[in-house]
Amino acid sequence: MPVNLPSIKNQILPPVKGVRLGWAEAYIKKPNHKDMLIIEVADGSSVSGVFTQNRFCAAPVHICKKHLAESKQIKALVINTGNANAGTGEQGMVDAMTTCEQLANQLQVPVNSILPFSTGVILEHLPMDKLLAGLAPAVSRLTEDAWEPAAWSIMTTDIAPKAYASNCLIGGHSVQVTGISKGAGMIHPNMATMLGFVATDAAISQSLLDEITKQIADLSFNCISVDGDTSTNDSFIIMASGQADHAPITSREDPGFEVIFQALLETAQYLAKAIVRDGEGATKFITVNVESALNNHEAKTVGYAIAKSPLVKTAMFASDPNLGRVLAAIGYASRECESLQDLNVDNIELYFADVLVAEKGGRAKSYTEAAGQKIMQESEIEITVKLNRGNELATIWSCDFSYDYVRINAEYRT
Amino acid sequence: MPVNLPSIKNQILPPVKGVRLGWAEAYIKKPNHKDMLIIEVADGSSVSGVFTQNRFCAAPVHICKKHLAESKQIKALVINTGNANAGTGEQGMVDAMTTCEQLANQLQVPVNSILPFSTGVILEHLPMDKLLAGLAPAVSRLTEDAWEPAAWSIMTTDIAPKAYASNCLIGGHSVQVTGISKGAGMIHPNMATMLGFVATDAAISQSLLDEITKQIADLSFNCISVDGDTSTNDSFIIMASGQADHAPITSREDPGFEVIFQALLETAQYLAKAIVRDGEGATKFITVNVESALNNHEAKTVGYAIAKSPLVKTAMFASDPNLGRVLAAIGYASRECESLQDLNVDNIELYFADVLVAEKGGRAKSYTEAAGQKIMQESEIEITVKLNRGNELATIWSCDFSYDYVRINAEYRT
Repeated sequence: MPVNLPSIKNQILPPVKGVRLGWAEAYIKKPNHKDMLIIEVADGSSVSGVFTQNRFCAAPVHICKKHLAESKQIKALVINTGNANAGTGEQGMVDAMTTCEQLANQLQVPVNSILPFSTGVILEHLPMDKLLAGLAPAVSRLTEDAWEPAAWSIMTTDIAPKAYASNCLIGGHSVQVTGISKGAGMIHPNMATMLGFVATDAAISQSLLDEITKQIADLSFNCISVDGDTSTNDSFIIMASGQADHAPITSREDPGFEVIFQALLETAQYLAKAIVRDGEGATKFITVNVESALNNHEAKTVGYAIAKSPLVKTAMFASDPNLGRVLAAIGYASRECESLQDLNVDNIELYFADVLVAEKGGRAKSYTEAAGQKIMQESEIEITVKLNRGNELATIWSCDFSYDYVRINAEYRT
Repeated sequence: MPVNLPSIKNQILPPVKGVRLGWAEAYIKKPNHKDMLIIEVADGSSVSGVFTQNRFCAAPVHICKKHLAESKQIKALVINTGNANAGTGEQGMVDAMTTCEQLANQLQVPVNSILPFSTGVILEHLPMDKLLAGLAPAVSRLTEDAWEPAAWSIMTTDIAPKAYASNCLIGGHSVQVTGISKGAGMIHPNMATMLGFVATDAAISQSLLDEITKQIADLSFNCISVDGDTSTNDSFIIMASGQADHAPITSREDPGFEVIFQALLETAQYLAKAIVRDGEGATKFITVNVESALNNHEAKTVGYAIAKSPLVKTAMFASDPNLGRVLAAIGYASRECESLQDLNVDNIELYFADVLVAEKGGRAKSYTEAAGQKIMQESEIEITVKLNRGNELATIWSCDFSYDYVRINAEYRT
């Protein structure tokens, strides 16, 4: 079961004015499963995206980037699960474009106003007959009040659907932010088999939304790791329909900017952390804080070295306060970050929750195994590393490594 | 069981003139287990070493580096298992120096002619009473013909001891190379919970041995990965006693250089691969060849991306020819290598054994699942990636990721 992830049945997921959702059971993944989603945004919406940096990125990612660059007005997103349309060469591009064309026809909009997304098995061609047949039922279901089935319809190996909503006031007007995400394995930033879609009825100019989408991704989806593998398909999209009644926000100085930024960030962070909580085989949710680093790259590199280490992750699974593995991971982070080459480990302080466990290059005198054990029993574990050499910090969210991780990934295609 | 690793009982491990070994049961690891080894080299020997690049490197690593820099004549190595003396701060340095001092006393040699090595649990202080009490029995056993018990005496989580011997002729004179290694987890280069000791009676000048020790490490121990974790204690030492009858080798142009270089390399590669074959929970031995890369860093980065990926490794465990995960790993290698940012994946060819499985950004037309399945059933799997953009190549040796990896590392301290 996911680690402390509230069921979406208990969440209220209010509609976002100007954003309609429609799902279908297209038999791509398996029979009688929602496996297709269309999200339609009203004219006048701003839409921005951030995508995987994997060189083997999937055909739909190529087309998303092209359409976002070309089109002045994105009109709809189309998402299928069960097949990633990645590593599919020329045919993959044709298939993704065909999907866009047919949906564009049905919605009577330009083809480059459609953004396609796929997630699932790599290297298999999309089952185009099934996929195209799913478009009409999904279009026929388009409605503003469908965030819960939408969350279900984009899942792959996820155990639980992931959704979040946040409401705020801008200039006295109510503004809604609602979002969904999916992903459980191949999770490592830039980004993961990870899809995130966040919508708001706030009015945000396109250029400002482009800026903050990148920034919010770096503070949310780009701070998580399940297994260090970066997927070919990761995409994170923010849609702003502009149908709330406040004055449009076009710069960081405008009234309401901080409010909507925080609401979007809170939503993205919740959705990103939800992916880790539902990480394949996860039994613990691990937060790694790295403080007082020389620079942000250094802070993130140390955080990821700990978050990715199979030895740290198996120790967490065993509730074993194996400090040595954490220190070893800090020590080898210099492999991937030049500024860490002169890291003086004698200055480092390591905390498990609020307990100082290591300092001056060794175990803290005040530390007791009993204190470490107590913290390790928890399902939420916070590790804090103070490098004591600068002012930058980073937080990485991760999970442990269990038998079930191996089982899930050994059985995935069978 | 280790993957295709011959038992050392069936290996002949000839003595190396000028190199004596003595073991002890010091009760550091557990009762009635060989857990200490002394290797003594004759006057006139050259001794070179390469060590972990982990910033949290252990106290003995610090002292090895210091003594190798200071001393004109290394006289003995002292190795204990069961405790790594890493993350032990100032006390760790004192303990390692005390060990050197007491052994120096017993052998009547300068203290800086001793090299200390420790492997085992991190962050615990060495049990000095037991360790020091073990020195005398180990010294009393010193003999040239003890490579087999020596291999046993340095093991930690290893299932099997690891040793290799090679004989060659230089100027008509027989020259012996014999070596041992240990390590099974926290294995990733630069280097791993990995110790390697190779001795030869060849006569090689100190400066030349320094050069080739680094080069041989880069072609052997620095080409393996079990879990991507780099240990705090890794050390690789070559000792050349100079007691064979050939003319001393002082440059790469000297007669016999190529012969002894190849014999040392063959021994180091065998010992490095033996560590992977005995990788924690390993059921498959995986060779990753990366060819036609722009530069060696790029070739190694792609190789390690595949070799380290938990998704690739769990697929290998399941004998699942999951090409997509291999392609995804190639694609995200650019995270750690700038020259890969412009990698054109359409030019890549991917082979499992001699079967072309992917090209032109997708699955090869000629590929069949049956062909892939057949290769995956083997215990030795060879993956070849042709990047088709340069002339550099690299080979990485790795293993799969099984339930037993999780079990071994979850239970390690309990």
